[in-house]
Amino acid sequence: MRADPPPTRERLITATADSLQRRGIHATGLTQLLAAADAPKGSLYFHFPGGKDELAAAALERSGGLFGAAIEALLARSADPAAAVARLAGALATGLEASGYVRGCPLATVALEASSDRVRTACGDAFASWLDTLERALAAAGHPPAQARDRAVLVLSALEGALILARAGRDPAPLRTVADQLAPLLAPPPRSS
Amino acid sequence: MRADPPPTRERLITATADSLQRRGIHATGLTQLLAAADAPKGSLYFHFPGGKDELAAAALERSGGLFGAAIEALLARSADPAAAVARLAGALATGLEASGYVRGCPLATVALEASSDRVRTACGDAFASWLDTLERALAAAGHPPAQARDRAVLVLSALEGALILARAGRDPAPLRTVADQLAPLLAPPPRSS
Repeated sequence: MRADPPPTRERLITATADSLQRRGIHATGLTQLLAAADAPKGSLYFHFPGGKDELAAAALERSGGLFGAAIEALLARSADPAAAVARLAGALATGLEASGYVRGCPLATVALEASSDRVRTACGDAFASWLDTLERALAAAGHPPAQARDRAVLVLSALEGALILARAGRDPAPLRTVADQLAPLLAPPPRSS
Repeated sequence: MRADPPPTRERLITATADSLQRRGIHATGLTQLLAAADAPKGSLYFHFPGGKDELAAAALERSGGLFGAAIEALLARSADPAAAVARLAGALATGLEASGYVRGCPLATVALEASSDRVRTACGDAFASWLDTLERALAAAGHPPAQARDRAVLVLSALEGALILARAGRDPAPLRTVADQLAPLLAPPPRSS
């Protein structure tokens, strides 16, 4: 006996998140999503009356949440932000290489394709939550609040950009390079006593 | 009397570069390109027998070259890499805002969509030439060679990632934030005398 498969709505979200990460939104077709999700025709508009944009926004929210939780778990494993960012960069490099350079950030491609406000907002919200996570980790390590936020913006930007360079060059090296280069900025400032 | 318009091949390249920057490759249709370039049907395969991929690669090479020249001109205006990177970030922020958040990097969207090896390689080659430009500017300012290369990877990655965040959030602030945050890493190390 097999466990029940997840319900149709879930399968549609999972298949969409997968396709958006690998191909972006314009190359993601509804027919292909229904097939990948083993979902009956008509189920898409039943579960997502707003169509492709509503489904894409739900998928981006899902993958943004999962990716954010993974970032949080990695950061929690070390009180040293430089070591945590190096670990995060290593995990991104491994995932990218293992997928034949198609699985980078689950949001970035769609964010750049900018298809609709609903989809763009879903990307912006997920990026904002990742920044919050990074900022909290940097503040917990002793960075003053404003600096923690700005450093978080730099860390996320550098990793996102390194994923672009790594994908274009089919070489994960930029991820490790940016983590190394960021290290001196991630050590917390000495506390005045 | 008007000046002669550029030849068809040029107009196709210009229209394609424009569309790839704003929409990426999957949302760029050949019919729309022919209309935008005011090019006769059949001219596309006459000038680009390899079709859309060949045209896209030519357009990416063109916009990569133009963008690279703009980077080089900005860097040449200052011997201080931190000031030059701040100026570059400001120019990117202005261009993005002025275009209603559709004109960021001319390569990044296509690099992430990863449609074919030919197109991906055109992106990778252009990124590599931008890195060379940044590396030369950092070396000229006194960074040792290996450090100049690694800092160049960080600068380009951070700007590319900030363009993603800026586009998703419809706010250019991440560009200025990363330039500010990078500044301490861009001052050349003191020379041993």
